[in-house]
Amino acid sequence: MDFKGMLNERKNEIEKLIDCYFAGANAPQKTILDAMNYSLNAGGKRLRPILVLEACKLVNGKKELANDFACSIEMIHTYSLIHDDLPAMDDDDLRRGKPTNHKVYGEGMAVLAGDGLLNYAYEKMIHASLKYPEYAEQSLKAMKEIATGAGIYGMIGGQVVDLESENKSVDLETVDFIHKHKTASLIIASMRSGAILGGADDKELNLITEYAEKIGLAFQIIDDILDIVGDQEKLGKDIGSDQENEKSTYPSLLGLDESRAIARRLIQESKDAISYFGDKAEFLIELSDFLASRDH
Amino acid sequence: MDFKGMLNERKNEIEKLIDCYFAGANAPQKTILDAMNYSLNAGGKRLRPILVLEACKLVNGKKELANDFACSIEMIHTYSLIHDDLPAMDDDDLRRGKPTNHKVYGEGMAVLAGDGLLNYAYEKMIHASLKYPEYAEQSLKAMKEIATGAGIYGMIGGQVVDLESENKSVDLETVDFIHKHKTASLIIASMRSGAILGGADDKELNLITEYAEKIGLAFQIIDDILDIVGDQEKLGKDIGSDQENEKSTYPSLLGLDESRAIARRLIQESKDAISYFGDKAEFLIELSDFLASRDH
Repeated sequence: MDFKGMLNERKNEIEKLIDCYFAGANAPQKTILDAMNYSLNAGGKRLRPILVLEACKLVNGKKELANDFACSIEMIHTYSLIHDDLPAMDDDDLRRGKPTNHKVYGEGMAVLAGDGLLNYAYEKMIHASLKYPEYAEQSLKAMKEIATGAGIYGMIGGQVVDLESENKSVDLETVDFIHKHKTASLIIASMRSGAILGGADDKELNLITEYAEKIGLAFQIIDDILDIVGDQEKLGKDIGSDQENEKSTYPSLLGLDESRAIARRLIQESKDAISYFGDKAEFLIELSDFLASRDH
Repeated sequence: MDFKGMLNERKNEIEKLIDCYFAGANAPQKTILDAMNYSLNAGGKRLRPILVLEACKLVNGKKELANDFACSIEMIHTYSLIHDDLPAMDDDDLRRGKPTNHKVYGEGMAVLAGDGLLNYAYEKMIHASLKYPEYAEQSLKAMKEIATGAGIYGMIGGQVVDLESENKSVDLETVDFIHKHKTASLIIASMRSGAILGGADDKELNLITEYAEKIGLAFQIIDDILDIVGDQEKLGKDIGSDQENEKSTYPSLLGLDESRAIARRLIQESKDAISYFGDKAEFLIELSDFLASRDH
């Protein structure tokens, strides 16, 4: 299979959907539409929306319904990056090789652009749910996964503990909590919502969840590793920033070799879980390997 | 009727519901729970949740379903205040006589506490919708009103234009846009969602919407007037701040007398619209007069 080609195809599909969300607006609130559009279309791997659609496909679900949920998760991911980059948070000037949202539109507008993306994600999901009333309960259940995964007991909870751990060394349990909540939580919600929209049974949902948990944690450990050994140009952001901030990470606590071994094991376990789906899981198995080998 | 007593009873009912949302938490994300709780329980008129429940009651709707929606709107209102008070926005130190969220918890945490409240509002509404699956479509329609009213084409849109109008004089059309979006939009969404949850027919929904539009705009004009003539202690915030910021308002553009006359007319029109409901509208009619006569 031509994995890279398929990955690109899926990425383009998502970008075509979100491209028209806030484009060409001539409204009084034009600035926020531009600001939201700027960050939403600033590139990125589109991993989360791809996972929504892939999980839905894996259980032979209805793709039309999942499309809006996929884009909504990308909006939630994007809002979290905009707020994370703010001076009061990580204070980053670059994101994916471009100036961060507040550098272009100012801090106040960046706060509102993040708020706007989070809220619009729900608008889109609610709208999609009303378009297919025969799936109303499934849609509400999928939305529940996303809301929980994105909220204070999920992603935001991870951001809080991350913010409080700045400039001090914390133990592996805390680093683990941050990774599982700040990153893995929304990745798990992506796949669970796609599977629920697709009508997965309990066994299917459990295996898809296991796959998501493993790649979600591996993804963040690999991110920490890349922050030390990565190539600044390829990453599109400052490397070594974790070290500068004296941030505790998997490599800083366990060393590079041990961290790499853990990531490898998680990747293998993700593939074991998803192999239940046979040929249909081919793309996700390749995706695991791809995430393990990425250099940005 | 003892209006003040009834108003207080409704206020206490709401406060009893939200009081336990984030209390007594002993979790890794304790700080954000405290921060959310701090602003959510900092007082306020609880106007929006009262309007949700009142609109639902007006059409003989099911109160249990509306309760969570009412509290969710209060969370959305509270998040918007937290973000509005940030240094990058209005830069306010006081809100309802207490230090603003970022003054107590820091800017980064205040951003996250706002995000957390917005997201939790949707969690609550989704949860309530799943609890009563027989009302799934009505719930989704009510959620749509709230999401639209709170979003970039509603409240956030008003905040954007407000932010861009700072320190410059704008025309009445722009002031009107800001009032209608920043304030009235969520008040309208409160009543429409309550009415939809209650099963209102088209005529009922239209009249309830008209009432909400009129009091929503009147409410903000009266706020502008109080900013000039109000008593600092009663308001619990700095008065004259609009003048200091050279902010265009109804009184600054039309004078106090003309602004008062417009507010009075809007209040009368709100009462005319809602009188269709006869005795059941008594509380809302008194509420209109109360809003017109308030001094804080």
